Amino acid sequence: MTERSVIHATFSIERTYDAAPSKVFRAYADRAIKRRWFVEGEGWDIETYDLDFRIGGTESSSFRFKGGALIRFDAVYQDIVPNDRIIVAYNMTIDDKRISASLATTELKPDGKRTKLVFTEQGAYLDGYDSIAQREEGTRELHEALARELARS
Amino acid sequence: MTERSVIHATFSIERTYDAAPSKVFRAYADRAIKRRWFVEGEGWDIETYDLDFRIGGTESSSFRFKGGALIRFDAVYQDIVPNDRIIVAYNMTIDDKRISASLATTELKPDGKRTKLVFTEQGAYLDGYDSIAQREEGTRELHEALARELARS
Repeated sequence: MTERSVIHATFSIERTYDAAPSKVFRAYADRAIKRRWFVEGEGWDIETYDLDFRIGGTESSSFRFKGGALIRFDAVYQDIVPNDRIIVAYNMTIDDKRISASLATTELKPDGKRTKLVFTEQGAYLDGYDSIAQREEGTRELHEALARELARS
Repeated sequence: MTERSVIHATFSIERTYDAAPSKVFRAYADRAIKRRWFVEGEGWDIETYDLDFRIGGTESSSFRFKGGALIRFDAVYQDIVPNDRIIVAYNMTIDDKRISASLATTELKPDGKRTKLVFTEQGAYLDGYDSIAQREEGTRELHEALARELARS
């Protein structure tokens, strides 16, 4: 039987991107662009990806790293203000074990021609399956992948 | 134009109920019981209520207090462990203005024949429409209404 536990924690990440808020926002709203920086990557096998970017809409993906365990990400958009704010609730499972549920807020603020992004995750980390340090590290890598995506075009 | 702002905050509430975890859990899982303590109350006009209690399922209600503004509550269940844990993401609007998005964890722990309930809300309070003190007060009232419901039967 699984030993049940919940650790609640909050972390935030700030980055400034060399792109206007409208371009950064589009990287979240457009399914093809979001898939490219949010789920694709060397060694990752994507089994499914879908995005319905509207309040109440869902985003889901399932993937494996180098043939390992099946990881699922399931999200529901809680609030969207174009070019300004995105709030999403998401949970993750690894081989059907739920490892976390989180509320993730992304705020975009114009900074001259650039964008200051403030990401805040308020998470419930479950049953000892995930660590906050690991989640924060993975989230930093995603924000680095977004920088590469914005530099592409 | 709305001045945009996000305040992130966490609060928790602990209560011990004179009922077994299975009975407390049922007050969340059963639509008729949940409606009774969670949305009904003197002065409140309930326009809609629905509950689909499963992971990924939704709960929604819309109501007015004494003919006032239309308040909407929209939730999606992130994790459910029977008799043990319920995690739900929810957002609220008043007259179509979104006032908050939150992740709410309810943990049930047996305490002899009673249940210790630990509620943790991790919230993003939006655009100055709601205060954390007000949300915590309303949430305490709901947990008091649950006590009255459990004492009924």
